[in-house]
Amino acid sequence: MSATDAIRIRPYEEADWPAVWRIVEPVFRAGETWPLATDVSEEEARRFLVELPAAAWVAETEPGGLVGFYYLKPNQPALGAHVANAGYIVATAARGRGVATAMCRHSQEEARARGFLAMQFNLVVATNEAAVHLWSREGFHIVGTLPKAFRHARLGLVDAHVMYKLL
Amino acid sequence: MSATDAIRIRPYEEADWPAVWRIVEPVFRAGETWPLATDVSEEEARRFLVELPAAAWVAETEPGGLVGFYYLKPNQPALGAHVANAGYIVATAARGRGVATAMCRHSQEEARARGFLAMQFNLVVATNEAAVHLWSREGFHIVGTLPKAFRHARLGLVDAHVMYKLL
Repeated sequence: MSATDAIRIRPYEEADWPAVWRIVEPVFRAGETWPLATDVSEEEARRFLVELPAAAWVAETEPGGLVGFYYLKPNQPALGAHVANAGYIVATAARGRGVATAMCRHSQEEARARGFLAMQFNLVVATNEAAVHLWSREGFHIVGTLPKAFRHARLGLVDAHVMYKLL
Repeated sequence: MSATDAIRIRPYEEADWPAVWRIVEPVFRAGETWPLATDVSEEEARRFLVELPAAAWVAETEPGGLVGFYYLKPNQPALGAHVANAGYIVATAARGRGVATAMCRHSQEEARARGFLAMQFNLVVATNEAAVHLWSREGFHIVGTLPKAFRHARLGLVDAHVMYKLL
């Protein structure tokens, strides 16, 4: 994939799961960015990523091949359900090519279209500087930092940010 | 109940549900402090309060009669599961008698005993000044404020705080 390949984002389908799992499994096993256990089972991951959320999408490049995945869901029940939560995962081999940015923008449009008024990320690991930088550039603010809220597989307890944007 | 009645906190038992529901139903119907729908069903409330959380307790006074309820659970999956989340509800008739304070202190002890390293409240409605004041007095900090994150039944969209304490 080159930086100029077009990124297409389309709704996730059940048949995408094996390709999604190939993307997300190494990310979860690394334990540096997502709170799921490093030994999370495929079934647990599937439940967390595509069964609980309201909707999910995949990113692919023109030549085919999945390079990213994201889900969108209400962050809280009814009286907090106008705030969306989204989670994005980019294939390791496709990092730095704008896939996360494309998915983040797509998710904001989808969230607006579904009537969400804001979007919140609950646990942005502070050492994940690429993510903090990217979401900041997309207009998300660090509303606060949770001391030692994430148990990083290599670094131990590290801080995590709550990030938020009114849509 | 007088201010000097002793408050006893003990594990929730299934037989407590009808009394708990009598306490929590008017709080949910008011839609001013909890995100559950104002028309939440008893079954949904039960699932949210006592089936999903890891543990739950009730507060009662010596003469008998439930005056409060709280639950404790991990706020995130595995790599964030060392941060506890708790939710407290005090019977309307028993407000201002230290029940919430007693439950908050009890929950911190329980959380420490269970190995939690911190406690987080995700959505403390900013207009709920009594709660903000109480949690602050118990050592919780407002780590950030989420603009318009709560749809208050009387006031419309209001801010909510994320509050946090290292245990």
